[in-house]
Amino acid sequence: LLTESQRERLDVVLVSPRNPLNIGAAARAMANFGFAHLAVAAPYAPHWREAKSAVGAPDLLASARESATLAEAVAGCTFVAGTGTLTHRKPEQPVVSLPEFVPLLHRELARGSRAALVFGPEKHGLTSDDLSFCHVLVEIPTGPRQPSMNLGQAVAVCLYELVRSSDSKGAPVLRSETEPGEASARPGQALATSADLDRLGDLVLETMAAAHYSPRAMQAANSRDIRLMLRRLALSPHDLRRVLGLFRRILWRLRRTEPGSNR
Amino acid sequence: LLTESQRERLDVVLVSPRNPLNIGAAARAMANFGFAHLAVAAPYAPHWREAKSAVGAPDLLASARESATLAEAVAGCTFVAGTGTLTHRKPEQPVVSLPEFVPLLHRELARGSRAALVFGPEKHGLTSDDLSFCHVLVEIPTGPRQPSMNLGQAVAVCLYELVRSSDSKGAPVLRSETEPGEASARPGQALATSADLDRLGDLVLETMAAAHYSPRAMQAANSRDIRLMLRRLALSPHDLRRVLGLFRRILWRLRRTEPGSNR
Repeated sequence: LLTESQRERLDVVLVSPRNPLNIGAAARAMANFGFAHLAVAAPYAPHWREAKSAVGAPDLLASARESATLAEAVAGCTFVAGTGTLTHRKPEQPVVSLPEFVPLLHRELARGSRAALVFGPEKHGLTSDDLSFCHVLVEIPTGPRQPSMNLGQAVAVCLYELVRSSDSKGAPVLRSETEPGEASARPGQALATSADLDRLGDLVLETMAAAHYSPRAMQAANSRDIRLMLRRLALSPHDLRRVLGLFRRILWRLRRTEPGSNR
Repeated sequence: LLTESQRERLDVVLVSPRNPLNIGAAARAMANFGFAHLAVAAPYAPHWREAKSAVGAPDLLASARESATLAEAVAGCTFVAGTGTLTHRKPEQPVVSLPEFVPLLHRELARGSRAALVFGPEKHGLTSDDLSFCHVLVEIPTGPRQPSMNLGQAVAVCLYELVRSSDSKGAPVLRSETEPGEASARPGQALATSADLDRLGDLVLETMAAAHYSPRAMQAANSRDIRLMLRRLALSPHDLRRVLGLFRRILWRLRRTEPGSNR
């Protein structure tokens, strides 16, 4: 996981972004994933102004660094990674996939580097001149039919990858949000006991009989089927109680209205 | 890694998307990562038309399915995952982080299920009513200061995660895996579709009403609870038919013997 101080040492750099909405979207993704330092190289002045003054723009847009060139934007960084796809490019530097990039970045940040993740203009991506400032080219694994990503989405995907790989090892943890004892078949939570299931099974059978659901000769077979089925259902104790309650009511009602009963 | 045929069985569902640009961005992310099936539930007609006719809109927008409700949009699916953050929510179903979700989805797709990944409207995300159609809630690990993601970016991040991860080990077990040989919740076997579950849910509600199980005022809440519970139960099509048959019989019987009916 990136520490707070490591996140503080990562700059997201947009080179000549054109669309104010994309600039806003990039900033929003940074806010979503906890990154604060945006730098913009050679922006188109009116679009940049518009993006900064947009309603609801994240704070980090207002404090973004602005520079005339990419060289200046990354001047303080010891590790610079360009992003893009390889369609029309034969880059000089190592190409790594986005998942492969994360350990590299971790290592650089861990040794105290300041790093930059650089995104090119919407239309054509980073030029080979831009790429010459980069230590690696990070490739986002898009498909061949539509390789080019929207800028805001590319930023979101890259930053997500940096944040996600925190807990990449082993046992995923499923969290249940409700109180213990509530609701159901949730992993890590108790299931109804076999005895509970049998209690329900008996009640269902009684109800079937009261509803004349099937001939008496079928009851042994039904009983087994119901038992098996209830075990496939992964009922929690809570759900079990609800289903019991429902069937008790139904059974009571069926019996109360049965011809021959003394209501 | 998802096979071609598995990708073919994943629907991306947008519920009432508002902004045509976001719809376009969602479609573009789908094209980037190789997914073709978009469904839109309860769209705002003019915005939806605008998104479809936008210059450069991906082909998959033109062939998107459109339906009046989320229930219809996911009717053919056996595994439905909602997306969002937990800020104002206490969901009833299991919550998994996005990386944890991937092996679950793999497993469902591997058993032949059709699955849906559902995204809520820009403003407030999925409602608890929407969530009651979902088997799991997928949480994108955003930070507490700016938890809410842009729709197009959320779609991009989720689909990237599906494509990036090829290892499916350590899948948490959501459903109980019972003895081989019998019907139901078993991996490798089909589950009842969302539409089937809704049919059963309606029948259970009718039966509850016929049995005077709870006051009429409770029916909306019951309806959501029943919907959620049925989705926890991992019913196979076979078991579903049996339960339907039982409830039909009970309902018929309850009505036949209802005071005031002409038996």
